[in-house]
Amino acid sequence: MSNFTSLKLIVMKNIIIASTSTLHGGDYLEYLLDDLVVFFEGKNEIIFIPYARPSGISHDLYTEKVSKAFSKIDKTVSGLHTFKNPNDCIKNAKAIFTGGGNTFLLTNTLYKNNLIEPLKKAIDNGTPYLGTSAGSNICGLTIKTTNDMPIIYPPSFKALGFVPFNINPHYLDPDVNSKHMGETRETRIKEFHNFNTEPVVGLREGSWLSVKEDSIILKGNLNARIFQYNKTPYEVSPETELNLLN
Amino acid sequence: MSNFTSLKLIVMKNIIIASTSTLHGGDYLEYLLDDLVVFFEGKNEIIFIPYARPSGISHDLYTEKVSKAFSKIDKTVSGLHTFKNPNDCIKNAKAIFTGGGNTFLLTNTLYKNNLIEPLKKAIDNGTPYLGTSAGSNICGLTIKTTNDMPIIYPPSFKALGFVPFNINPHYLDPDVNSKHMGETRETRIKEFHNFNTEPVVGLREGSWLSVKEDSIILKGNLNARIFQYNKTPYEVSPETELNLLN
Repeated sequence: MSNFTSLKLIVMKNIIIASTSTLHGGDYLEYLLDDLVVFFEGKNEIIFIPYARPSGISHDLYTEKVSKAFSKIDKTVSGLHTFKNPNDCIKNAKAIFTGGGNTFLLTNTLYKNNLIEPLKKAIDNGTPYLGTSAGSNICGLTIKTTNDMPIIYPPSFKALGFVPFNINPHYLDPDVNSKHMGETRETRIKEFHNFNTEPVVGLREGSWLSVKEDSIILKGNLNARIFQYNKTPYEVSPETELNLLN
Repeated sequence: MSNFTSLKLIVMKNIIIASTSTLHGGDYLEYLLDDLVVFFEGKNEIIFIPYARPSGISHDLYTEKVSKAFSKIDKTVSGLHTFKNPNDCIKNAKAIFTGGGNTFLLTNTLYKNNLIEPLKKAIDNGTPYLGTSAGSNICGLTIKTTNDMPIIYPPSFKALGFVPFNINPHYLDPDVNSKHMGETRETRIKEFHNFNTEPVVGLREGSWLSVKEDSIILKGNLNARIFQYNKTPYEVSPETELNLLN
């Protein structure tokens, strides 16, 4: 046998994909901070991607807000928008965080700045990546299961594909008392599956996925709801391994 | 003076743009039927555009549902999907109804079938047009204020532009008791105005716009919420003229 038979493509992924940055009544990232101490261990500078701009906040102010949260665990934060060459910045980043806001705007800005491939490479090489909300949506195969308003037309709905399924963050159960006739989240995802076959993981607020190499584990106290093509949706409990979804 | 000085481009628009097809506890189109008797007077056959396919219902079943509703006011309904040449069908239509469902799917199918221009022409020539939900979204300048999930990537977000603003159907006031951290509708529209200047009319369920030539009147019992670029959102009451929004 040749030496090459034991060679294996080693994927070093190290990712947290969180439904939300903030729980009701809590501070920004507060519920995740203990886990982030471990996740970002040895990485003191985090590159922040502020492109999703929730409520239209400026890149500077958004970065300031994130810096304040990370200062509690002694991390410094630099906004990607302050670098002359964002491509090099991503390549050299010790750790990356993409915050929430509008997924269409985030996706459009990533494409416009030619950052899709550099991000994929960095994450494949093991750069720790944290995403919340819109920053989690882009970790899926496409952004076709975002809840956001399409305020800008991106060149594609294809996303980073860090996991082999789509994410629906802020997953919301149907409100049985509602008199509103808009579609429930489950109905929307059902419509998605009329035209797409990718599985969808509905992540409730307070849940996150911990991705390490080829393992994807549901974290937090809540179940997640799994939508697979041509299957009845079902619940999975925390600590479930999700890497075999298809 | 030449005879030409008194010439004027006569726009014959005759449109109903409704927030929803169905009120809570009511039947399909029930709350609108009295008005539709007047609106469709003298037009006995309605061409139905079933492309938005709510919950992925088939074109045939969707058309059947609509036929049943319209039979109560003695109208026959034909699905646009049953015509070999949908372009000719729209051109010759006596009246048109586009139902709700997914706005991205609807828009994509209209582009794919080259129906954007034929629809604009038909409506400019006075063919009565009824839209509900997704069928109303496409009456605005763009679909960038839809609430729908982007399950399919259309060639453009540009819409039919029957009115000089965007529509947000199923407009929903913020739920002050909610512990959910997803964006409110108002926040989403505020984000829209960070990148777009078009006014947005938030139509609550039960409201509709009556468009006749160059007049656009709010109908139903509820106020609508108006979002203009760089202005504080405000309410307008039924019977308000909206043709001067900019």
